[in-house]
Amino acid sequence: MDEKRLKQQLDFILEIDKEKNIFRQTHLTGYTRRENDAEHAWHMAIMIYLLREYADEDFDVMRAMMMALIHDIVEIDAGDTYAYDEVNLATQKEREDAASERIFGILPTEQKNELRELFREFEEGNTPEARFARAMDNLQPLLLNDSNGGVDWRVHGVTRTQVTSRQKRTLGASKVLWDFTHRLIDKNVEAGNIKPE
Amino acid sequence: MDEKRLKQQLDFILEIDKEKNIFRQTHLTGYTRRENDAEHAWHMAIMIYLLREYADEDFDVMRAMMMALIHDIVEIDAGDTYAYDEVNLATQKEREDAASERIFGILPTEQKNELRELFREFEEGNTPEARFARAMDNLQPLLLNDSNGGVDWRVHGVTRTQVTSRQKRTLGASKVLWDFTHRLIDKNVEAGNIKPE
Repeated sequence: MDEKRLKQQLDFILEIDKEKNIFRQTHLTGYTRRENDAEHAWHMAIMIYLLREYADEDFDVMRAMMMALIHDIVEIDAGDTYAYDEVNLATQKEREDAASERIFGILPTEQKNELRELFREFEEGNTPEARFARAMDNLQPLLLNDSNGGVDWRVHGVTRTQVTSRQKRTLGASKVLWDFTHRLIDKNVEAGNIKPE
Repeated sequence: MDEKRLKQQLDFILEIDKEKNIFRQTHLTGYTRRENDAEHAWHMAIMIYLLREYADEDFDVMRAMMMALIHDIVEIDAGDTYAYDEVNLATQKEREDAASERIFGILPTEQKNELRELFREFEEGNTPEARFARAMDNLQPLLLNDSNGGVDWRVHGVTRTQVTSRQKRTLGASKVLWDFTHRLIDKNVEAGNIKPE
């Protein structure tokens, strides 16, 4: 029994509790308050499991779920960067790399390396697991926002090009979910929630 | 492409968003506010993955993670029942069974059956997956509470017998984590956070 190893693991588990205080722009259904990163990650992991039949490629479901669960941990240090905030998007990678080094570095070395690799793979989006996890990262706030009559899009004055461009990740992961996404965007443009251009 | 099936899945995904509004007795580290069920489940799933080496039996990690992710969904209808609330514990099973039928029933039949079975298995606690997931269900609030100097125990006047009795589930899942738990309880009894009896 390696006391130091267990302590490192439990220290990390306590550290990531802070992710529950990182709030996103998206509001919960009912528009009661903004959603935090831990809630978003929980929702994404369940979506990966329940919607996996729609993936265009076979993938390792647990690996994708772990990516979803940990992909926002870096925001404990780096903060949430809104999908359409061009200024902060420019420095996002640098801030998140430093956070990844510090936070995953609390773990024993091989677990640190494993989680940093999962995070990097998610960010790069070049594997079937990362593609499907990222598709859920996009679809989840889309569903919440649509359920709230698109208020978050209207408040931020978001355009069809902006939403479509971000959601294009889903095209590489699932034709079925891309088709659904496309129709949902059209509906919200027609309703005046998303600007035509 | 089965439109009705996809709609049932997405309706369920939106319905469970409500779990983010079910607050527990446990406070986040820093004692800023109470934790909700979705945050708790997210934390448990990551703990299962990172601490799986301490399980006394081999187990299917993804199955245990899914149990953790969905085990509190019934509380959307049934509410949270505090671990030491004898009155509400008496009606907990009946309330949760009805909730399980309604909420998982939003899904297509075979996914409904799968998730109800996962939930039942977790509740019964008779498989290696359920034992380890339930051990995390106990260990997670213990870690948060300890990090806050045991305020939640002091507020509720909790005794060593109460805490030890609940944490005994961990004994069947992991000798290493049971040993850690036991020492953590002793420390909090000595510090006056948990009543000796």
